[in-house]
Amino acid sequence: MRWVYDFSDGSRDMRDLLGGKGANVAEMTRILGAERVPAGFTITTEACVAYMDGGGFPDGMSGQVREALDRLEAAAGKTLGDAADPLLVSVRSGARESMPGMLDTVLNLGLNDASVAGLAEKTGNERFAWDSYRRFVQMFGNVVRGVEGERFEGEIARIKRDRGVKLDTELDVAALRELTQSFQSFYDFPQDPAQQLEQAIRAVFDSWTGDRAVSYRRIHHIPDDWGTAVNVQQMVFGNKGDTSGSGVAFSRDEVTGEPEPSGDFLANAQGEDVVSGVRNTRDISELREWQPEVHAQLMEILRTLEGHYKDMQDCEFTVEEGRLYMLQTRNAKRPAQAAVRFAVDAVQEELLTKAEAIATIDAGKLDALLHPTFDPAAEFTVLARGVAASPGAAKGKIVFTAAAAVEQGSEHDVILVRSFTEADDVAGFHAAKGILTSEGGKASHAALVARGMGVPAVTGASAVEIDVSAGEAHIGDVVLREGDLIAIDGTTGAVTVDDVPLVDPEVNASFETVLGWCDELRRLGVRANADTPEDARKAREFGAEGIGLCRTEHMFLGERQKLMADMILAVDERGRRAELDKLLPLQQADFEGLFEAMEGLPVTIRLLDPPLHEFLPHPSELPEGSAIRARAESLQEVNPMLGMRGVRLGIVYPEIYEMQVIAICRAAKAVSPAPHLEIMIPLIDYEKELELMAGLVERVAHDEGLERGADYSIGTMMELPRACFIADHISPLADFFSFGTNDLTQTALGFSRDDIEGKILARYIETRILDRSPFETIDTPGVGQMLRMGAWLGRQGNPTLKLGVCGEHGGDPDSIEFFHHNGLDYVSCSPFRVPIARVAAAQAVATEPAP
Amino acid sequence: MRWVYDFSDGSRDMRDLLGGKGANVAEMTRILGAERVPAGFTITTEACVAYMDGGGFPDGMSGQVREALDRLEAAAGKTLGDAADPLLVSVRSGARESMPGMLDTVLNLGLNDASVAGLAEKTGNERFAWDSYRRFVQMFGNVVRGVEGERFEGEIARIKRDRGVKLDTELDVAALRELTQSFQSFYDFPQDPAQQLEQAIRAVFDSWTGDRAVSYRRIHHIPDDWGTAVNVQQMVFGNKGDTSGSGVAFSRDEVTGEPEPSGDFLANAQGEDVVSGVRNTRDISELREWQPEVHAQLMEILRTLEGHYKDMQDCEFTVEEGRLYMLQTRNAKRPAQAAVRFAVDAVQEELLTKAEAIATIDAGKLDALLHPTFDPAAEFTVLARGVAASPGAAKGKIVFTAAAAVEQGSEHDVILVRSFTEADDVAGFHAAKGILTSEGGKASHAALVARGMGVPAVTGASAVEIDVSAGEAHIGDVVLREGDLIAIDGTTGAVTVDDVPLVDPEVNASFETVLGWCDELRRLGVRANADTPEDARKAREFGAEGIGLCRTEHMFLGERQKLMADMILAVDERGRRAELDKLLPLQQADFEGLFEAMEGLPVTIRLLDPPLHEFLPHPSELPEGSAIRARAESLQEVNPMLGMRGVRLGIVYPEIYEMQVIAICRAAKAVSPAPHLEIMIPLIDYEKELELMAGLVERVAHDEGLERGADYSIGTMMELPRACFIADHISPLADFFSFGTNDLTQTALGFSRDDIEGKILARYIETRILDRSPFETIDTPGVGQMLRMGAWLGRQGNPTLKLGVCGEHGGDPDSIEFFHHNGLDYVSCSPFRVPIARVAAAQAVATEPAP
Repeated sequence: MRWVYDFSDGSRDMRDLLGGKGANVAEMTRILGAERVPAGFTITTEACVAYMDGGGFPDGMSGQVREALDRLEAAAGKTLGDAADPLLVSVRSGARESMPGMLDTVLNLGLNDASVAGLAEKTGNERFAWDSYRRFVQMFGNVVRGVEGERFEGEIARIKRDRGVKLDTELDVAALRELTQSFQSFYDFPQDPAQQLEQAIRAVFDSWTGDRAVSYRRIHHIPDDWGTAVNVQQMVFGNKGDTSGSGVAFSRDEVTGEPEPSGDFLANAQGEDVVSGVRNTRDISELREWQPEVHAQLMEILRTLEGHYKDMQDCEFTVEEGRLYMLQTRNAKRPAQAAVRFAVDAVQEELLTKAEAIATIDAGKLDALLHPTFDPAAEFTVLARGVAASPGAAKGKIVFTAAAAVEQGSEHDVILVRSFTEADDVAGFHAAKGILTSEGGKASHAALVARGMGVPAVTGASAVEIDVSAGEAHIGDVVLREGDLIAIDGTTGAVTVDDVPLVDPEVNASFETVLGWCDELRRLGVRANADTPEDARKAREFGAEGIGLCRTEHMFLGERQKLMADMILAVDERGRRAELDKLLPLQQADFEGLFEAMEGLPVTIRLLDPPLHEFLPHPSELPEGSAIRARAESLQEVNPMLGMRGVRLGIVYPEIYEMQVIAICRAAKAVSPAPHLEIMIPLIDYEKELELMAGLVERVAHDEGLERGADYSIGTMMELPRACFIADHISPLADFFSFGTNDLTQTALGFSRDDIEGKILARYIETRILDRSPFETIDTPGVGQMLRMGAWLGRQGNPTLKLGVCGEHGGDPDSIEFFHHNGLDYVSCSPFRVPIARVAAAQAVATEPAP
Repeated sequence: MRWVYDFSDGSRDMRDLLGGKGANVAEMTRILGAERVPAGFTITTEACVAYMDGGGFPDGMSGQVREALDRLEAAAGKTLGDAADPLLVSVRSGARESMPGMLDTVLNLGLNDASVAGLAEKTGNERFAWDSYRRFVQMFGNVVRGVEGERFEGEIARIKRDRGVKLDTELDVAALRELTQSFQSFYDFPQDPAQQLEQAIRAVFDSWTGDRAVSYRRIHHIPDDWGTAVNVQQMVFGNKGDTSGSGVAFSRDEVTGEPEPSGDFLANAQGEDVVSGVRNTRDISELREWQPEVHAQLMEILRTLEGHYKDMQDCEFTVEEGRLYMLQTRNAKRPAQAAVRFAVDAVQEELLTKAEAIATIDAGKLDALLHPTFDPAAEFTVLARGVAASPGAAKGKIVFTAAAAVEQGSEHDVILVRSFTEADDVAGFHAAKGILTSEGGKASHAALVARGMGVPAVTGASAVEIDVSAGEAHIGDVVLREGDLIAIDGTTGAVTVDDVPLVDPEVNASFETVLGWCDELRRLGVRANADTPEDARKAREFGAEGIGLCRTEHMFLGERQKLMADMILAVDERGRRAELDKLLPLQQADFEGLFEAMEGLPVTIRLLDPPLHEFLPHPSELPEGSAIRARAESLQEVNPMLGMRGVRLGIVYPEIYEMQVIAICRAAKAVSPAPHLEIMIPLIDYEKELELMAGLVERVAHDEGLERGADYSIGTMMELPRACFIADHISPLADFFSFGTNDLTQTALGFSRDDIEGKILARYIETRILDRSPFETIDTPGVGQMLRMGAWLGRQGNPTLKLGVCGEHGGDPDSIEFFHHNGLDYVSCSPFRVPIARVAAAQAVATEPAP
């Protein structure tokens, strides 16, 4: 088994084996030449995996490390630990995906009480040698042996105080020597360089399973079993005096994406000083004055690397006595605006094709372009943190009830602060600038509704204790009252009472350009879930090609709820019809507004879906012993998710669906251009259910003068496992299927979204059963397979069947890729996710292997 | 298209086309000779289907009927409607499956005002002719034209009164003539025999979609699209005088199954008189004295038919002036005891092999052999009817609460009368002789628990209004108080306040013999769902080979509920462990009792499954503002079925499962012989869940000195759709799968059993979406396919995997056949269903096509 590769043996294709850093250092060695990249070798990720499994280095690894070290020593003409002219190396982690700051690094390894003198003599720079040594002892103690960083920093502070100096660079050799000795007293420092190396390698391996790294992987969906590689590289020194220095450089501006390299450097410093922020760095442009030749070389190298990798690069470099070394390069992480700008410029520069450019964008981050943010320059105190539930920042006066939000929201900006939210609170969402809850997660009611409306929200901020009756919220010692200012950032989960300035999103021409390219490239259609004319207009602004889900139940809330309740509580069909007659013109007007906003585009309308008791007051609020209360009680269900809802309502109370179909038909006739109507029956289990309901729709529509095919189509929500199994029996009766992946996830997994979000989901992620909520990204082995089966069988039964998705997953980039690869025709998502879906759909094409 | 077949052209293999009656008359014509069976022809079921689809007779049918009639007239030497010597025919329905009394029949067709005279003259029997004619006019009016039967009967009564006679047979020709004329005034009687025939055929077709027939098909699971055939047959007359007669004969005793023919006959009567009960019939044995030759012929024919059909026969015959005609034969419907007796005798007589004999039994009816019944001879008034929810009859004093049942149940027999039941009532089930509820159906809590315990139950008796606070129940005008006598029959749904004598089931040697043969034949193992030593003993008495499901939650009810509640309400793990320590010895004792009863047989124990709040008082019963109430509230769930239960409990509160495993291990060590232990983890979605829980079980068991493999095995409940999809990932970690088809049905169909049973299920059956509850017989297209996939993938991942079922379906014969054909190893059902499952499992083998 080969566990070790010299840099000269690797390439960027070996990322899985050598990690990102190892593969890129090898690649740089190939393209820039060995003189620009310090030599070294990589211990593979497979060695780390074997180490984690077995508890020790795998057989043969130590020998291979020794041999690689021999080659490195031969090439460098120096020996590790040589008392006269020691070879020094860095030992760095490097996983398949970059995990900045999460894994361990040790620099200057090879120094000890003997070789420090050799280094001093060979370089003629005693101060440099002792500075390097004290840094090594400090870093080794901290990283490999777990001594707290404060102890070292405290000692440095003490010595500076003793010597009356302010800067580290002012410490002389004697001071550094004293410091080094002092540091060595903190732990059992190994003088033997072989032991140093072995312990450092072990520390890097161990850091993979450290708490920081594990939580980082949870958040970024990185599998635990990848492991990290270890890179051992000859040290070069940026701290060798005024012609030396270290820095980081981006091939383009890392914030804006403008085509000017950016970065920071420090003269007479090692790389860690640049990153740590201990000293104030200088802008990369100043490099030109300091060492013009190095600057020119670096600019040339950045162009070369960007051209080679075909992506924005993020490099580390060191200048040792006027000579430039490149230590690392990687594709630059970048905020959304920079990603979009780079994509557009790269195409204009003919660096990338449009498809390649689109593939460089992280679609999940684009949300940030569509909402206000906290001013990045602002300083403020984070008082609490919650779940980043709906992106964007907002600030305003605190209100504790939806009613107060509605009342005050027209006069000034308000933030609705609740323990959790329910259907009754939705009016408050419309009126508020932002939502803050102390309970619930990313898939709580508050989060779902807020994301759907594009209202910023922070949920589950458990430090916020709300006492509605007292009109107070407590965050630690801070007491907040109604009307007090609060600001939330739904992109980060931060909550503050500081008056942080907000920055509006720029109207971004580059983003428009990219979206245009995406529309050319993608095969998936993108529609929006929208229930109101405002939603519909917003959806069209964001480029939706139609409405993929209009939830008619929202049309029965607010002032109509009373009528709806009267209808439900009526004792018989005649009573129900009387109330439905009153609802008909209201519902028709709702549809007219929606159709007008869509100007002839397709609109998929789902007939009434939720359990009826959602429209009723709780029985306990009704007069005791009354008939109404008895009826409300009889409608209560043990598991409402699995009860009297969806098509079951249409079967048991056909008069409700009849009224809805009449309203739809009349509205369609009243509006010009007429919408492309698609009537959708929810919660189908049996083909016969659809047969009955399609018959009802056709009969009622015919009476209104509309015919199936010419004027409208009929389809089903596919949201129950059984339906996927018999999709070939359902599809001959349907013009389209829309997979309702929210409910399909609930039933396939037996997970009630309302009940699973809190304790259970948290514990499942903690115990690594899950890496994210199945309501966020589709569960491919279960729900995804069901959808594949339903799609395939559906087309077996009806080759012209149209296939879409209208669950929350329709706006999730990973899920969109899955839908694309499984032959769906469109996705439908909340209006604010439409641009993201357009990009993700295009990326699914861009990253497809060539046929 | 051929719509009509002469009897001489058909055979019993043509049942689907000719209906049961048509096929059997044709078969009898073949084997007994044309002289024993009056000639005729059959109009096919396909003609009926075409008629139902198109609204009229299909093209060509009328012509074919005319041709067949011509042949019949030629053979008989008589013509329909001939004024001198008319041919008379019967027109009878005949569906693929017998639907006794549900479809229409017309006799003596062909008579009119002219031909009645010819018949009189030809037969020399004027009274016979007029009696036949008045019967025809009456029957035609009633069956074909919908005139109420009471009008005819009223008229007959009037004439008898006028003439001062008591019996129909005492009416003379003049009276019959008057009666016939009077009957003709009730409706527009067609004199033309061709019109009579056409209208009669149409009436038979129409009767297929009549209310009676539709409800019968609902109950007996007969598809609507089969249609009925129509048999037109030359009349023979049992009412031609004292050497004529009609009767029904069974080849064996139809009640006991004893090998003596049984039946009834009437001299000088048509078949309808025998069936209608208008006159008191004579026992078939008296036939010997009356007409010894006819008796001998009939006995010989019964033997021939039974030997030919290899099953007990139910025949209709007519003797016309000393000549015996066979009109119909079919396999006899029979009660369970007769079915069992016949099976045993048929094998001894070498009429059938054991497998063939087993296949003749209706497994679903065997329940009746295992419970007391109302004395069949007793007369009583049925006061209300409900759903026959759990078989057996019971009587006792009324109690309205579980507590009263427990208190009084030890002193005398009590019947628990409730609106509906909940977990809290289960103690009352143990104490009561029977359960009566006014709400719920066959799958309500009361029904499920009662069937599981073998307690007779009638549910959904909506006429029973219960006022617990007043301590009264009202059934119409009858007021019942606690302590009043009530009797219920869970086999029929009858409720009475009469003191009906009960009859204990016989200890039936024949049944034991049959069960023994079944055990030889079947491949499926049969286990029982049992939670207590009493259940376990009962299960073994009924032949269970082990316990397939021990639900440990029942061990936390009753007096332990307080401890359980304290455990759940504890603020932290330490608090929970303290309470669990108290539960441990109690649970261990429970397991010891169970293991002792099973004497070394396998016992599958499911670790705790239900939502925790099921063990808590409702929050509203706890002190307002208390921490306990807050905690109880926090445990409330929107959809408890899909929430914190099953393995999720084990993941979030591992200490609960740990306690249970300790109790199981210690109990197993304390009992000799030790049980064959199988520990089952419920509600698995992800293989990682099982990995974690199997790890917990192995660790805890190891500490107790037990090892997986040697001492116990570990398996999962397969009860979520996702699990079926990834069964090949789960199975390598499992020793067995037990499909929990109750919950799998709930999730696959999105049907909450608690919520769907009432209005929705009723409406679904009414609208023909369903023909029975999916909780009664497995839904093969959906749930069944999931199970097949889970079983197949499971064995792919682990070829030695054991596969079972432990849902309610494990005791349903149709479902058992499905499980057998899909390679399962065992079913587990309630103890009282074990004999049924043994028979059904054997039948699945017996009816398999030869390989």
